[in-house]
Amino acid sequence: MSKTILAALCQTPAVTDKAGGLAAAGEYIDRAAAVGAGLVVLPEMFCCPYNNAAFPPNAEPAGGEVWQFLSDAAKKNNIVLAGGSFPEIEDGKIYNTCFVFNEKGEQIGRHRKMHLFDIDIPGGQKFQESDTLAAGRDLCVVDTQWGKIGVMICFDVRFPELARLLALEGAGAIIVPAAFNMTTGPLHWELLMRARAVDNFTYILACAPARDESAGYVSYAHSMVVSPWGKTLARLDASPDILYQELDFELVTAGQAQIPVLSARREDLYEITVKK
Amino acid sequence: MSKTILAALCQTPAVTDKAGGLAAAGEYIDRAAAVGAGLVVLPEMFCCPYNNAAFPPNAEPAGGEVWQFLSDAAKKNNIVLAGGSFPEIEDGKIYNTCFVFNEKGEQIGRHRKMHLFDIDIPGGQKFQESDTLAAGRDLCVVDTQWGKIGVMICFDVRFPELARLLALEGAGAIIVPAAFNMTTGPLHWELLMRARAVDNFTYILACAPARDESAGYVSYAHSMVVSPWGKTLARLDASPDILYQELDFELVTAGQAQIPVLSARREDLYEITVKK
Repeated sequence: MSKTILAALCQTPAVTDKAGGLAAAGEYIDRAAAVGAGLVVLPEMFCCPYNNAAFPPNAEPAGGEVWQFLSDAAKKNNIVLAGGSFPEIEDGKIYNTCFVFNEKGEQIGRHRKMHLFDIDIPGGQKFQESDTLAAGRDLCVVDTQWGKIGVMICFDVRFPELARLLALEGAGAIIVPAAFNMTTGPLHWELLMRARAVDNFTYILACAPARDESAGYVSYAHSMVVSPWGKTLARLDASPDILYQELDFELVTAGQAQIPVLSARREDLYEITVKK
Repeated sequence: MSKTILAALCQTPAVTDKAGGLAAAGEYIDRAAAVGAGLVVLPEMFCCPYNNAAFPPNAEPAGGEVWQFLSDAAKKNNIVLAGGSFPEIEDGKIYNTCFVFNEKGEQIGRHRKMHLFDIDIPGGQKFQESDTLAAGRDLCVVDTQWGKIGVMICFDVRFPELARLLALEGAGAIIVPAAFNMTTGPLHWELLMRARAVDNFTYILACAPARDESAGYVSYAHSMVVSPWGKTLARLDASPDILYQELDFELVTAGQAQIPVLSARREDLYEITVKK
């Protein structure tokens, strides 16, 4: 089993409509695969404007146009594709969902954002995802030829419980499609991504849309990759671009042995339990 | 109930013996109280060299010389005193323990380091606290006139479960007597302290001994205070000094309302439980 991998994080342009978002994503995925990326990541809401008014009209079920586009792109390019997220509808409920596909275009994972983005900062950002979205319930860890990979979406990163549970399930890297804003981005984007990495000695791959100052919701951008030791290995600025980073899953297990952040947990005293 | 407080973190000189450590601590505490600090914090192992050979001969029970020194210093100066830590012995077991005293010199809290410092970094730091020390079992949150304050010691900070449990018990500030080293300090000291703050929107007060390059274990020092928003408010360099910082407990509850890191936890899906 190979342990090293070239990952590509596609910081695609801010989206105005589904067709434009899909076209840009397709172009970025093809470019990343052409230079040899084996794992390609898209941003949160990569083909839908990030606002509550846009979620319902753009919602689609698994198996719909966007899902099929992602499956086809993974298969065509022979890559593992973490499809950012889009508004997924099932039984009348809309979720902020990341689907993951393998090299054959088969769905191998689905993460529905578990912690909805409901914040209210006077003079800063206000948003209530729960006005239109429902929250997910399930952990997502997928098996790849390099090792296990977990998924969280954006606001999920604030809750160390989730990254911990993914690491305990064996995830050596955690993908975070996300779109922090111009209030929380400068304050917390890099801090939180580095924190989740060092808490668990896992890679963190945080992929955001590029910044568009004229958008209703302005993405902080700054897609980045953090090492298992919590070091920022690579980070984009605010413009559309692709971030490439080689990952070595051997460093995860080596780090977890040197500073035993998982095994030295006091499971005799506290426990994070998953309720079913 | 007053919500604001001047805190003082005493970055005392590296210790060679108990008498010298107590003398320095006494001088620093008096200085801090004289300028108006209401809460004074000492570093980890403030009166015992930080090495396994020194812990057993310096171990004392609660009520012994060091404990009494701390109680007297709190009462004399009319302060809340978080007494860093010293090797505490009970029933033949030695703990790395922080006692907290109120303005009357009464013990109001005891935290025994819960996660022992057992790491092995090739070419870097190696240490096995568990060779001589036993680990604590109980959460420590004390009541003060300003609000609730929790305690963790050094390696405890790597485990987000503990800070989360303290915050859920109502701690608006968490005191961290600590002594990172020259491997983990540059890598993780500030990152982890800021992470624990922003995870819970609590203050973090991290108090370390000053650096002594000639010591067997070289402290990274850099005592610091982090705001509930994860911002480094103040930080010392490596020399002996006192760090002063005003704290406002109102900012804790305000922050926790704006970005609901505690209330938006998915307690329907996961739970951190304390085992008895």
